[in-house]
Amino acid sequence: MIDDQTKKSTTRRLKLIRGQLDGIERMIDQEKYCIDIINQITAVRNALEKVSLLVMKSHIESCVADSIEVGDEKKKAQKIDELMETLYKFVT
Amino acid sequence: MIDDQTKKSTTRRLKLIRGQLDGIERMIDQEKYCIDIINQITAVRNALEKVSLLVMKSHIESCVADSIEVGDEKKKAQKIDELMETLYKFVT
Amino acid sequence: MIDDQTKKSTTRRLKLIRGQLDGIERMIDQEKYCIDIINQITAVRNALEKVSLLVMKSHIESCVADSIEVGDEKKKAQKIDELMETLYKFVT
Amino acid sequence: MIDDQTKKSTTRRLKLIRGQLDGIERMIDQEKYCIDIINQITAVRNALEKVSLLVMKSHIESCVADSIEVGDEKKKAQKIDELMETLYKFVT
Repeated sequence: MIDDQTKKSTTRRLKLIRGQLDGIERMIDQEKYCIDIINQITAVRNALEKVSLLVMKSHIESCVADSIEVGDEKKKAQKIDELMETLYKFVT
Repeated sequence: MIDDQTKKSTTRRLKLIRGQLDGIERMIDQEKYCIDIINQITAVRNALEKVSLLVMKSHIESCVADSIEVGDEKKKAQKIDELMETLYKFVT
Repeated sequence: MIDDQTKKSTTRRLKLIRGQLDGIERMIDQEKYCIDIINQITAVRNALEKVSLLVMKSHIESCVADSIEVGDEKKKAQKIDELMETLYKFVT
Repeated sequence: MIDDQTKKSTTRRLKLIRGQLDGIERMIDQEKYCIDIINQITAVRNALEKVSLLVMKSHIESCVADSIEVGDEKKKAQKIDELMETLYKFVT
């Protein structure tokens, strides 16, 4: 489960991202220069990447670590497989 | 400048993305499973990638193509350099 | 440390990648169509991504898991921080 | 077609990449630390990304630009579609 600090930090970041997204909608509406729009979208994608990495860190520290501490090999393998699948989607 | 069809299509996509972003904020607030949150963020990042590519296509078709058609070598080089810099930021 | 199965599998993949790389050098030397060259490089980058993910899985299963099993909180935090930094470089 | 300068520059870069790849094979053979292996693979992937962008720049400057200069709308659309498909594969 997501820990308190990560919850606060990701919620704050998502609010900023929402503001950036509003800005991009306005840029498109006002037909701003395409290059500026693309660079702004890149900034949002990078900000979302950071949010994902924060959630992933929290997930490894709690959920994956718990499954390892408990010593259940099947559960450990399952959690690591799930993490790798998510990582694979994340990077492609 | 962004063409009409791209303007409509990207505006519609950004509205969907905003909805997805609201969903992610709720997932974090309700402390949903981290893996589901990460996969949802990945979906939004992919959707934003599509928006960027649509804007980029429109930019190449109009702005870059115009600079080439005009036959001004300096302008052409400048536009292509700018596009490559944007692409570089986009992929890293 | 990298486990035996991962060692075999990544070594075999790297040999294939080397062959693909030789192919790309030939394509450039013979001035083949740019789009085909770029797509071939994309294939190699994707293949390398797979190799990275295999090594990462092996690392989490052994090194990160060991640091968690031992129950040393400082070591656990250190290993997870290191993993996240590597992931960050990996995705950007 | 790839221009002379790009041909030289990409060939030189690919030789360096081949050396880096040899190094990674040795690291795996000698069972070096996983994190170092992953970071080394990331370096190679970034180097390949640069090669792709150089080829893409050359392609836009020559092939795409030519199709635009000639003034054949169908050919222009075809070349830009092909470029966007390649870009899509490149970024995903």
